[in-house]
Amino acid sequence: MATALLSDLATEIIIPVCAVIGILFSLIQWALVSRVKLTPDRNGPSNSTNNGFNDSLIEEEEGINEHNVVVKCSEIQNAISEGATSFLFTEYQYVGIFMVVFAILIFLFLGSVEGFSTKSQQCTYDIHKTCKPALATALFSTVSFLLGAITSVLSGFIGMKIATYANTRTTLEARKSVGKAFIIAFRSGAVMGFLLAANGLLVLYITINLFKLYYGDDWEGLFEAITGYGLGGSSMALFGRVGGGIYTKAADVGADLVGKVERNIPEDDPRNPAVIADNVGDNVGDIAGMGSDLFGSYAESSCAALVVASISSFGINHEFTAMCYPLLVSSIGILVCLITTLFATDFYEIKGVKDIEPSLKYQLIISTVLMTIGVAIVSFIALPSSFTIFNFGVQKVVHNWQLFLCVCVGLWAGLIIGFVTEYYTSNAYSPVQDVADSCRTGAATNHFLSFSFAAMYGIAVAALGMLSTIATGLAIDAYGPISDNAGGIAEMAGMSHRIRERTDALDAAGNTTAAIGKGFAIGSAALVSLALFGAFVSRAGIQTVDVLTPKVFIGLIVGAMLPYWFSAMTMKSVGSAALKMVEEVRRQFNTIPGLMEGLAKPDYATCVKISTDASIKEMIPPGALVMLTPLIVGTLFGVETLSGVLAGSLVSGVQVAISASNTGGAWDNAKKYIEAGASEHARTLGPKGSEPHKAAVIGDTIGDPLKDTSGPSLNILIKLMAVESLVFAPFFAAHGGLLFKL
Amino acid sequence: MATALLSDLATEIIIPVCAVIGILFSLIQWALVSRVKLTPDRNGPSNSTNNGFNDSLIEEEEGINEHNVVVKCSEIQNAISEGATSFLFTEYQYVGIFMVVFAILIFLFLGSVEGFSTKSQQCTYDIHKTCKPALATALFSTVSFLLGAITSVLSGFIGMKIATYANTRTTLEARKSVGKAFIIAFRSGAVMGFLLAANGLLVLYITINLFKLYYGDDWEGLFEAITGYGLGGSSMALFGRVGGGIYTKAADVGADLVGKVERNIPEDDPRNPAVIADNVGDNVGDIAGMGSDLFGSYAESSCAALVVASISSFGINHEFTAMCYPLLVSSIGILVCLITTLFATDFYEIKGVKDIEPSLKYQLIISTVLMTIGVAIVSFIALPSSFTIFNFGVQKVVHNWQLFLCVCVGLWAGLIIGFVTEYYTSNAYSPVQDVADSCRTGAATNHFLSFSFAAMYGIAVAALGMLSTIATGLAIDAYGPISDNAGGIAEMAGMSHRIRERTDALDAAGNTTAAIGKGFAIGSAALVSLALFGAFVSRAGIQTVDVLTPKVFIGLIVGAMLPYWFSAMTMKSVGSAALKMVEEVRRQFNTIPGLMEGLAKPDYATCVKISTDASIKEMIPPGALVMLTPLIVGTLFGVETLSGVLAGSLVSGVQVAISASNTGGAWDNAKKYIEAGASEHARTLGPKGSEPHKAAVIGDTIGDPLKDTSGPSLNILIKLMAVESLVFAPFFAAHGGLLFKL
Repeated sequence: MATALLSDLATEIIIPVCAVIGILFSLIQWALVSRVKLTPDRNGPSNSTNNGFNDSLIEEEEGINEHNVVVKCSEIQNAISEGATSFLFTEYQYVGIFMVVFAILIFLFLGSVEGFSTKSQQCTYDIHKTCKPALATALFSTVSFLLGAITSVLSGFIGMKIATYANTRTTLEARKSVGKAFIIAFRSGAVMGFLLAANGLLVLYITINLFKLYYGDDWEGLFEAITGYGLGGSSMALFGRVGGGIYTKAADVGADLVGKVERNIPEDDPRNPAVIADNVGDNVGDIAGMGSDLFGSYAESSCAALVVASISSFGINHEFTAMCYPLLVSSIGILVCLITTLFATDFYEIKGVKDIEPSLKYQLIISTVLMTIGVAIVSFIALPSSFTIFNFGVQKVVHNWQLFLCVCVGLWAGLIIGFVTEYYTSNAYSPVQDVADSCRTGAATNHFLSFSFAAMYGIAVAALGMLSTIATGLAIDAYGPISDNAGGIAEMAGMSHRIRERTDALDAAGNTTAAIGKGFAIGSAALVSLALFGAFVSRAGIQTVDVLTPKVFIGLIVGAMLPYWFSAMTMKSVGSAALKMVEEVRRQFNTIPGLMEGLAKPDYATCVKISTDASIKEMIPPGALVMLTPLIVGTLFGVETLSGVLAGSLVSGVQVAISASNTGGAWDNAKKYIEAGASEHARTLGPKGSEPHKAAVIGDTIGDPLKDTSGPSLNILIKLMAVESLVFAPFFAAHGGLLFKL
Repeated sequence: MATALLSDLATEIIIPVCAVIGILFSLIQWALVSRVKLTPDRNGPSNSTNNGFNDSLIEEEEGINEHNVVVKCSEIQNAISEGATSFLFTEYQYVGIFMVVFAILIFLFLGSVEGFSTKSQQCTYDIHKTCKPALATALFSTVSFLLGAITSVLSGFIGMKIATYANTRTTLEARKSVGKAFIIAFRSGAVMGFLLAANGLLVLYITINLFKLYYGDDWEGLFEAITGYGLGGSSMALFGRVGGGIYTKAADVGADLVGKVERNIPEDDPRNPAVIADNVGDNVGDIAGMGSDLFGSYAESSCAALVVASISSFGINHEFTAMCYPLLVSSIGILVCLITTLFATDFYEIKGVKDIEPSLKYQLIISTVLMTIGVAIVSFIALPSSFTIFNFGVQKVVHNWQLFLCVCVGLWAGLIIGFVTEYYTSNAYSPVQDVADSCRTGAATNHFLSFSFAAMYGIAVAALGMLSTIATGLAIDAYGPISDNAGGIAEMAGMSHRIRERTDALDAAGNTTAAIGKGFAIGSAALVSLALFGAFVSRAGIQTVDVLTPKVFIGLIVGAMLPYWFSAMTMKSVGSAALKMVEEVRRQFNTIPGLMEGLAKPDYATCVKISTDASIKEMIPPGALVMLTPLIVGTLFGVETLSGVLAGSLVSGVQVAISASNTGGAWDNAKKYIEAGASEHARTLGPKGSEPHKAAVIGDTIGDPLKDTSGPSLNILIKLMAVESLVFAPFFAAHGGLLFKL
């Protein structure tokens, strides 16, 4: 078999260079965002270069004191930033303890595989060779777990910092024009997107190279140890998503139930005591949580691809360039996203509200088209023209063009799933929503094309293909909550309603693309877990997962139950946290004189504290459920039952996640439908504050956490259980199934 | 191997004798119920023998004109009975067309297996013998399908007739005492329970004997043809449950939304135009639908046990008594239930409200204890001391005491699941509800004890064990809606509120036991489908159902999706039917002068017609989904994919059904909690008509159809797809998987 065109040295250079370019690009974006000053500047508007935008400030037109407004905005930003930082630090303390405990567990479990022996051992797949001791894999897995966890935490934290930094700046730019506000919000999203993608790649690349110094030719052990990186990344993602999700929805539901339903005051009204907590929540849940989540997906799909590759001909023949194919795809992805970003910020000009949504959609299309070319190049220069892939015991011959097609399937399926989801979400009242589900399932089953080309490696690189344009995807995803918060700040700072209209338009475009992002998230989670499941089955030495055996069937039932259980737990957590918030908000309205009249200031800090304490406390049980299930099942019942659990949680988790997002979306749309009052029927139900509207608001208090807390967390659940099983596979294979052994 | 103690002749006598005893007993119960006259009878109370009850009529005490009240009750009963009969006849017209079309399909599909050849063929399992042609099996399967369908329809229809017959009589007896009303309601339930169990057994027994005249020694073909009986029974059950479920919830939700929320009038108020439709709904949904459903379960579990037994040593050695073991268990079940019923109606006296619930629970416990003895006797006299059971290609040796234990696992698991469900349903606010789920799953996994004893035959007889006391179970289940309707009639006839209090007490006890019945239904559905799944896999000649093959995995995903899709379709159907009802009820309140004041009569008939038309129209798409999926998947993708679909729908369907029943139950409890106002917290939320109460009523309009339409229909979905696959297995095995063959 031929070798790759690209030399190993070139590979060693290309990957870090692309990562560094990504980091530099994000720093430039940050610098551009920070040009917007938060200090009052009377000469401001006239100084800025006018390139076709309407630059006269709305305040000047309406005669509102500009100085006060800017000072107020700056104050609000500080309050939000402090609240978010304080929550994240509290969360990280608890998560830190978990991290240490779990790191020790990994070391003990994996170390015990060979009884903590320091002797080298026979390799698992290539039985003629000698591999490093299990103790070394235990140690390096622990290290890569910690590295993955820390990178994930950093990704979330930096994202939150940038978002809070950008909120107010977006509000201030909205005074100039909707286009300027768009660019600030989008650039901030890009900072996060590029930092995360480039950091994830760089840390993974450096870790592989450092571990290689010890492992040398034992790539089997090397990439087994690397899977810890994926586990670290996604276990932090779980806590980030669940904790952040509970925080944001407790605040949101609490604010809405008392504010909108009981007191009839609008959203983001500064008289509502939960309003700051609500804005903090958007930053810790939608931004930090999402950042950790996508980093986790990225790390997991890379690890899944690497571990499958390591036992294929790449790994056995030590073809470094081909082995690094997943990393090279991600590297090209950074360059492609960089060019794509320029289309939104420099090549194309947003002149009005109607330009925003097309601009965001073009981002997705441009990045996908360019990435197709990029993947083609990488596939032809980095892969030998044919090679073999390990497929449950047999080696399957694969051609490089087949792998190119596998990545493209993921890449384009992401786009198609996204657009189908978006199309149908905007038609929530039509019965065709079922059709959307079946289309998504149809698209998912198309991935069996990838499987037929290159077995589990095909699935893994398809997942990677879907995530290869992560920088652009994340920029768009982060843009939404940033605009949303910008609107909140405008409202709280008492700015003109015309500012609010502009940020609402930005937010609306963001919501549309958020639906696309959700399609991406579920699709990629399903693919990644499938790939990890395949890797686990290979690593645990399972030949068939036969539903007809009771061991597997019990696992299937328990696995199918987990997403419900998890979902019920998170919903209850949001419920009890929201209840505390409702009581506090009610108490403030009842006991602070002049609050409703806007004469007294509410006590924002208490609400922030309630959300923080409740979400930290409530995130532990669902987190423990997900983290402990694979450990307990694997140890007590063995790998067959565990494979049943993984298959069950995968098929049921995807369904529950889709159902949660549909149900949530339907309630949300019902509320918006009444609020908008666009049709005859809608007007008979409205206006705001009417009985049907209140009913819809109450319905939305269930739909919202379903859509924004349960749904996204479920994506992590299925991935995390699979990657955890993979990391612990050597232990389960050696010592698992205690109950049957006794 | 030894033979059974019981001679074949004795078996031939015992089964029909027990069935006839059951039918006679139900006729006696009917005669006792019909003693309550619906004609005004001024001397009534003094004529009846007084055995400790307070027999003075409440009307006499309160001075209400008794004559008018009885006449009014009689009128209402006629209206309900006419509405129900008219709905069922309309439904049966559509279902009849379906039945004929599907019968033709069965004949064509199964006939084509051997190309409509009339030549005898080699047997599938015992290859040294000659079996009847596939064409004969096609013909007899079609006949048994039609017989099953007709028996199912009759079960539902007779149940409805008895229930409407009993409603008013219960109301009238409630004037005397709560004990007398209880006995009437319970006896009516028993009529239905015994008729259904005995009829099901008798028709199945006669069919087997008639088919045997043709098949002779070819038991393989004989019992393959008998599976059509199960398919016929449960396909009618599907339409009955779905159609009836949509009917009753459309009327219920329509009546509640306008009556309770918009007009602030109480439940069952005669001014509400949907009130008669609501009562008709209880009879066609809760009674006729449930009757068909349980008949389907009974027929399917018998067929599953018979078809597995036919390819085991019983069938190969032609041991008729052992072969009839499932039927003998059901026969003894009828006798046991007969004795149990006497405890409620004759041996034990209901003196007050507090005695009702214990009396019903004793029924369950007594029947289970007696049945354990019955099963022990049957197992020791009807089975050889050891025999072999077919277990996916190998014959497994089983002892008769093991089979006894298998039946007992099902029997007692039913009771335990029921009581656990009931315990936790009455504690709906506590987080321990999750524990209930895990207990149920725990109990379900205990069935793997049955599997380890006697493979799929063990599962099948465990299912049969759970259903062996069906007569008592059904009597209790039917008792609930009968009492509920009795209360409605009291309200509508303008009787004293003390009557209503008594029927409410009866109804409350019924609701508690209904929770137990729901546990039974889900548990038995899971067991039955598992057994049918096993039979299908055996019949289709599948060796392993390996999740790791794409064919099976696609099936698993699609199968897991079906319950959601089905659930979404039924919920939408209820929604659109309810909307039509709401509009009609609003229209009547707005256009009929004097309606709110009680001066004018509403137009009940239009509401009945709306419910009828809407439910017939809406039941077709979900019905088609369930009926067509196995046919399409089996024909196009083959048996491996179909087995994946069945496994997926089984694991996901059970979860969705449990979740639907929990969610529905929680909303229902929230509403009742506020209405009861028993705690400090509940009183701050109440009273009836307050904002939180209205919100809970709105929530219940979603929870109710989830609990009463989607949930129970899902039980049928998983069973029906499995039995349909089993019936068509020979076709799929011979000609299935067209897409892969092309």
